[in-house]
Amino acid sequence: MNQGVQGQAGLELSSGEQAAIVAGRMVLHFQEGHAGMRELLGGKGANLAEMTTAGLPVPPGFTVTTEACREFFQTGGKLSDERFGEIGDAMKALEVKKGQRFGDPHNPLLVSVRSGSVNSMPGMMDTILNLGLNDETVQGLGRLTGQEAFAYDCYRRLIAMFGNVVFGIEGLWFERKLHKLKEDSGIEEDRDVSAEQWKLLIGQFKQIVVERAGKPFPQQVEEQLRLAVEAVFASWNNQRAQIYRRIHRIPDEQGTAVNIQSMVFGNLGSDCGTGVIFTRNPSTGEKQLFGEYLHNAQGEDVVAGVRTPLPICELEKDMPDVFTQLSATADRLERHYRDMQDIEFTVERSKLYILQTRGGKRTAQAAVKIAVDMASEAVITREDAVLRIEAEHLDQLLHRAIDPEAALDVIATGLPASPGAATGQAVFHADAADEAARNGKRVILVRQETTPEDIHGVLAAEGVLTSRGGMTSHAAVVARGMGKPCVCGCESIRIGDGQFAAGEQVVKEGDWISIDGATGRVIRGHVALKEPEISAELTQLLVWADEVRDLRIYTNADTPHDAAKARELGAEGIGLCRTEHMFFAPERLPVVQSMILAEGMTERKEALDQLLPMQQSDFEGLFRAMDDLPVTIRLLDPPLHEFLPELGELLKQQSAQRQETERLEQAEKQDPRLAEVKRQLLETERLIRKVRLLHEVNPMLGQRGCRLGILFPEIYAMQAEAIFLAVKSCQQEGVRVKAEIMIPLVGHVNELKRLRKLVEETATAVLGDELAAVDYRIGTMIEVPRAAITADQIAEHAEFFSFGTNDLTQMTYGYSRDDAEGKFLTAYVEQKLLPANPFQELDREGVGELIQWAVQRGRGVKPQLKTGVCGEHGGDKASIFFCHELGLDYVSCSPYRVPLARIAAAQAAITARQAKAEGAVG
Amino acid sequence: MNQGVQGQAGLELSSGEQAAIVAGRMVLHFQEGHAGMRELLGGKGANLAEMTTAGLPVPPGFTVTTEACREFFQTGGKLSDERFGEIGDAMKALEVKKGQRFGDPHNPLLVSVRSGSVNSMPGMMDTILNLGLNDETVQGLGRLTGQEAFAYDCYRRLIAMFGNVVFGIEGLWFERKLHKLKEDSGIEEDRDVSAEQWKLLIGQFKQIVVERAGKPFPQQVEEQLRLAVEAVFASWNNQRAQIYRRIHRIPDEQGTAVNIQSMVFGNLGSDCGTGVIFTRNPSTGEKQLFGEYLHNAQGEDVVAGVRTPLPICELEKDMPDVFTQLSATADRLERHYRDMQDIEFTVERSKLYILQTRGGKRTAQAAVKIAVDMASEAVITREDAVLRIEAEHLDQLLHRAIDPEAALDVIATGLPASPGAATGQAVFHADAADEAARNGKRVILVRQETTPEDIHGVLAAEGVLTSRGGMTSHAAVVARGMGKPCVCGCESIRIGDGQFAAGEQVVKEGDWISIDGATGRVIRGHVALKEPEISAELTQLLVWADEVRDLRIYTNADTPHDAAKARELGAEGIGLCRTEHMFFAPERLPVVQSMILAEGMTERKEALDQLLPMQQSDFEGLFRAMDDLPVTIRLLDPPLHEFLPELGELLKQQSAQRQETERLEQAEKQDPRLAEVKRQLLETERLIRKVRLLHEVNPMLGQRGCRLGILFPEIYAMQAEAIFLAVKSCQQEGVRVKAEIMIPLVGHVNELKRLRKLVEETATAVLGDELAAVDYRIGTMIEVPRAAITADQIAEHAEFFSFGTNDLTQMTYGYSRDDAEGKFLTAYVEQKLLPANPFQELDREGVGELIQWAVQRGRGVKPQLKTGVCGEHGGDKASIFFCHELGLDYVSCSPYRVPLARIAAAQAAITARQAKAEGAVG
Repeated sequence: MNQGVQGQAGLELSSGEQAAIVAGRMVLHFQEGHAGMRELLGGKGANLAEMTTAGLPVPPGFTVTTEACREFFQTGGKLSDERFGEIGDAMKALEVKKGQRFGDPHNPLLVSVRSGSVNSMPGMMDTILNLGLNDETVQGLGRLTGQEAFAYDCYRRLIAMFGNVVFGIEGLWFERKLHKLKEDSGIEEDRDVSAEQWKLLIGQFKQIVVERAGKPFPQQVEEQLRLAVEAVFASWNNQRAQIYRRIHRIPDEQGTAVNIQSMVFGNLGSDCGTGVIFTRNPSTGEKQLFGEYLHNAQGEDVVAGVRTPLPICELEKDMPDVFTQLSATADRLERHYRDMQDIEFTVERSKLYILQTRGGKRTAQAAVKIAVDMASEAVITREDAVLRIEAEHLDQLLHRAIDPEAALDVIATGLPASPGAATGQAVFHADAADEAARNGKRVILVRQETTPEDIHGVLAAEGVLTSRGGMTSHAAVVARGMGKPCVCGCESIRIGDGQFAAGEQVVKEGDWISIDGATGRVIRGHVALKEPEISAELTQLLVWADEVRDLRIYTNADTPHDAAKARELGAEGIGLCRTEHMFFAPERLPVVQSMILAEGMTERKEALDQLLPMQQSDFEGLFRAMDDLPVTIRLLDPPLHEFLPELGELLKQQSAQRQETERLEQAEKQDPRLAEVKRQLLETERLIRKVRLLHEVNPMLGQRGCRLGILFPEIYAMQAEAIFLAVKSCQQEGVRVKAEIMIPLVGHVNELKRLRKLVEETATAVLGDELAAVDYRIGTMIEVPRAAITADQIAEHAEFFSFGTNDLTQMTYGYSRDDAEGKFLTAYVEQKLLPANPFQELDREGVGELIQWAVQRGRGVKPQLKTGVCGEHGGDKASIFFCHELGLDYVSCSPYRVPLARIAAAQAAITARQAKAEGAVG
Repeated sequence: MNQGVQGQAGLELSSGEQAAIVAGRMVLHFQEGHAGMRELLGGKGANLAEMTTAGLPVPPGFTVTTEACREFFQTGGKLSDERFGEIGDAMKALEVKKGQRFGDPHNPLLVSVRSGSVNSMPGMMDTILNLGLNDETVQGLGRLTGQEAFAYDCYRRLIAMFGNVVFGIEGLWFERKLHKLKEDSGIEEDRDVSAEQWKLLIGQFKQIVVERAGKPFPQQVEEQLRLAVEAVFASWNNQRAQIYRRIHRIPDEQGTAVNIQSMVFGNLGSDCGTGVIFTRNPSTGEKQLFGEYLHNAQGEDVVAGVRTPLPICELEKDMPDVFTQLSATADRLERHYRDMQDIEFTVERSKLYILQTRGGKRTAQAAVKIAVDMASEAVITREDAVLRIEAEHLDQLLHRAIDPEAALDVIATGLPASPGAATGQAVFHADAADEAARNGKRVILVRQETTPEDIHGVLAAEGVLTSRGGMTSHAAVVARGMGKPCVCGCESIRIGDGQFAAGEQVVKEGDWISIDGATGRVIRGHVALKEPEISAELTQLLVWADEVRDLRIYTNADTPHDAAKARELGAEGIGLCRTEHMFFAPERLPVVQSMILAEGMTERKEALDQLLPMQQSDFEGLFRAMDDLPVTIRLLDPPLHEFLPELGELLKQQSAQRQETERLEQAEKQDPRLAEVKRQLLETERLIRKVRLLHEVNPMLGQRGCRLGILFPEIYAMQAEAIFLAVKSCQQEGVRVKAEIMIPLVGHVNELKRLRKLVEETATAVLGDELAAVDYRIGTMIEVPRAAITADQIAEHAEFFSFGTNDLTQMTYGYSRDDAEGKFLTAYVEQKLLPANPFQELDREGVGELIQWAVQRGRGVKPQLKTGVCGEHGGDKASIFFCHELGLDYVSCSPYRVPLARIAAAQAAITARQAKAEGAVG
């Protein structure tokens, strides 16, 4: 049972492909195909067909289809006689076209055999050149070209490649012999090797094949061809190809095609050459031919780096006609494919041949410039330009990066948790980070993992490095939210007291380190960073994106600073302000703690009264930063114990204070400090009792969210009062406030009813008659499955639904984010039990179904219900596409994801429109 | 804004009621109503109407409806003139009927005014007798009856009751005066008080009214009537009524009716009397008039216990005609109402009057006997008999109870977590319980809370008492599963070292205590227990239930002993065998631990090889006990850390071992024990590392269930092997095995696919060709919301769905069972945010909707899909009704809930059929 042949039903074939399959044909000449037949012909084959059909100078040939590959695996890894017959027929046609015969000693046809899969899999599959040479035809080739040395050079290359690809003999064995030959005869370059010397080497190569493969190099050209095609097919399942597919999520059942093409030679003399060009500069995007070529050389010499190639402009001097033809062809190919092309060409005796063309890889900066330029040139539409931009491009452009020129001492690699690079002195505590930053130092906070109490340290640091936790650990989420670089789960470092070790190296507090949040690299020392650039082209692209998208893009922001940044990046409102983040500020935490520890209502009210003006000024800052845009404020959400010290710490403290008490009590003279130490001990013991009382087995499913609001209405009342006081003062300043108050973790409509009433009563109490002139809404998070299920009931008491997809995913899957990633989720994704990590990419079938249900039920009751997503998924492209499909009103993401979200939302809208148009046509 | 007038739309009215409301009438004569008009007339009014219509000797009168009560609250707590006019008209008609006039000094009509709510609310509402007496009419009554003392006695009663009910004057004030009067004059009984003395007292009573109410007792009889009706209505919202309604979940908007009825007197002489009878014996159910009466007395004298009443058989001697008439009436009423009746009667001058009839309260034993007897007598159908049985009846009948005659020293009260009573010596550790039981002692295990490691202690104990945890805490769930009595969450006891304190009392290890799991009582000392009785009648009822129910009843059983017990109680299979409970047995735990701690596969396999034969014999026992019935075996479910010792314990151990090591190292001579202590310390440290590694923030949502099976396939493979080896050996013995293998915690279809394959491959490996002859299925728990949502995908790979409603409720609500009950759930239910605790009663709107969705989607793919519930809800009546409505195939509950489930399932089927029939008629 071979995986490779399964799931054919899953492939989407074009009409041409279907026709070919229906006709039972598994071999197609280049002139019979076109670019739309990638699934059947592979990327390279489809491009060769497209170019052939377009009349470009492509050496003739044909493609053995992916369907044949699937058949190959189905029949146990053998090419059937029927299939080989079909290949033979195609070879006959090729012979006619070239006026040569395969295996003819006098006028031999030589071909290349190359794999060509549907998705680009660079370096993964194998190639054989010069197939058709044997002891006899090599002589014919020598005679025909008048270059015996060239002919034997080609032959020795064939034997080595064939030995490697078909028989699995390591290239090293052949290279050693060549090396020795050149050394013995004092020759530096291959082209100086004589025919006789090549013959000697060929004898040695044949010997290697016999010794290592147990059989001779086949002299029968048909046997060469059969074995070569089989070897390419078989290589689909070699280990590196399997790994590549797993990483890039390419289905195993896709299979590869094989392209058989007549050879052309760039190494037949001074009127020959070979090269690679890009139609535009792949680094900058400038419109200008870019590339290099080698005089009198074969293609692999460019790649192998044996000789240093010349810049392409030199070709213009050497062969002006060829250069003109190449420029025109490049231009034609770019317009034809409507994208910057990466083209391989060969010049054989002053005749230009195009061997391959494909979309060129490019830097983020180039990608943006090329897309905008091509739209301006009317080669592509503005929508196409928007569709061309990828998430990684924006990650590169919007964050600082490590100078690509810098030499790096990489000492460890963790998870790339938040993009961007940072450099600073290592510190190991949040307080230390805070203090160092106050003194003007740049620091990297290094922790096993972070907790909400470390927030001020994260805020103060340039970046965060943790040794535990996954892509959605606390450190990762917080860092992404703040746009700070973060490398997390770097398990190879061992954090000790004031230092960490990575392998043999030890980094001490104060040592300089750098992290690259885009790759997960941890680097010793200070490195130079490149500032992010929002180019004119990127600005243009974002404007185009805004013109077509339907989803509004909000941001998750807790501070005026974040809000302003997000607005600058295009956010149209705040979708989530987590008020608890305001509670963790170091000067507020003691007040929050005394509120929690309060023995009675009076004491608690006192603490709340202190918090009220602080919260009010927080909200005023947000309203001002978001003048005329909605600001969604979530009332207190996390379990109260998060605001208290850890039990372990307290127990240590208690033990120390007890010992101190005993010591002082046993002292001969009464020590004046005794009373104070005793008081402290009592306080510690009180804290211990409270922490124990608040301890929960599963805090995720415990006393948090609106459950707090129900049990301690005075907390929510204080927050509502602060909001409406802020509304009042801001409106007096002329700020246009749009407040949206969000009740978290609602599971039953009664919770929302009760708390809505509390908020409304507070609003009336604060604003009285002025309330009529205030633009505010009350809504809820939908993050508990039950809320989604009973969305119709809940919608009656909510003006908006904000899907908290982080928690909704946790509860729908029954996965604790804190536990799953380290423990089993990674294994699940690796073992393909899950298509993706559902905390990164919204799970359509499960969580998505619930969201859809909730939207339908909610809108059934209240058609104008506003809906959006404010989880981490709000900044993920695939998830944004899904949100668009569901018809949500907005997504909310961290400030630095806003540009990405704008692009993704536009792409979703365009893609949907195109699919609809196609549906209408088909 | 008064709650009392809301939600009228929610009331379900009979056609008679609707007609009355449509006619705009809010006062109805007894002869105009019937028993079906409870919503409008209240229970008492409807019964009086029914009896009147049936021609029984009921003193004439009328009812002011609940609709008038709602109107009363709507108009701000005042009786409208229109309504009072209607009452006046009814009084006129009553005057005609009685030939008396209200307020007529010569021939006064006297009435009683009583509340009568829809649901019985005993003692909650208020009554006024003798209304219509004033300074003039009292003289007329005296003349008319020829008994002046009687007349003034009636008058003083009116003033006191009126003062109390209408003016809110405490009864104490009046009682004191009466007491003083009798003391001063040396009178013992009220009937010996003379008219003159009553007059004196009446003067004093009037004075009390003026002093305390600030206004005189009204002489105007119309005013008396108006104030009385208003007072009864107003009393609907008095505090005790509100509390009663909250406890019994009676809607606030229901309102009460008021019954106004002409007075009859049982205290006019020796041909008078009053009494209460039951138509059958309420303790035993025997068919025989049962009750008592008082000669020459008013009704409240029976209740007040001023005089000792006589058994009803004495009436036969005193007034044989009246007794015959009463017997016939009782018989008629019982047949009329088709239930045992509790009847109040009065004999006025040899004429029998029926004042009230209602269904009589009865013991569980009586309830069963009466139901079966009445079905045998053809008074009711067998289905009616089944419908009459309540869950609490069965709880009483199926568990040992405390001898009702015993004198008890109750020292504390906790939650009634598992029914039944137990008596034994207190022990404080599971091991101690186990050891004591082995030595033949009976013990009660007392713990703060229990953990899975205490299972053997629970098993060994007679019952369990915990100071923490709710109705669904570990102790409660496990105890219910084993049918052991349990009192949990008994927060008033403080457990110390080898003792616990309850108030001033201290119970030491070895002291005898008793617990009553039906009431939550904790009793000092040894008490006598009554054995449960499965009477012939109960057996009969269960057979009748089995004839009509559609749901199959399975049981949750982990041992052959439980399985056999459940089968005896009527279980038709095992719906849930938790294999982990087998892992906790003390002789196995070390093997399980070494399996968990294994460093590599070889080591783990060794441990698994030891477990294999143990599991195999477990399963063999179950298959034998359930010969020819399905046995559903759930593969390992809980997180592995549950099998390891607690971190705190280990740290203590480590500290002790370290100290010991140091001590031995410092000793002068080398101690031979040093090596052993060092080895132990290393072992402890290894355990600590593993426990830390397995620690989870939210274990509920962590690495458990099938996630273990995916990560450690060798564990599930061992379990599957044990199952199929057991199948093989049992089939060879001739046991008819029906194995159902259940994969827990599936959230994504791929998990099930992978593990199903593992089980199937194991089956083939063990059984080979014999497999064809084996009756087995593979299915899954549906307990993760995502599994319910994607049930169509999952059903393709499952032969059955077992809804794990405990976990499904946890995740759908986002409530951790371990945290919610203590922290907020109790408050939620008390504050009516939730209609019920969703862990006790299945939440229809949320969790239920998911189940329904899953059943529909699952059956859409696989129509024959078997579905059931195996959570705690499988033993809850309301939940069983819901399961019936959903069309599930079975419910599974703990062995001792099986009879209840059989009855509930039958009741659900009957109720549904009746509703359908009514629907067809209506």
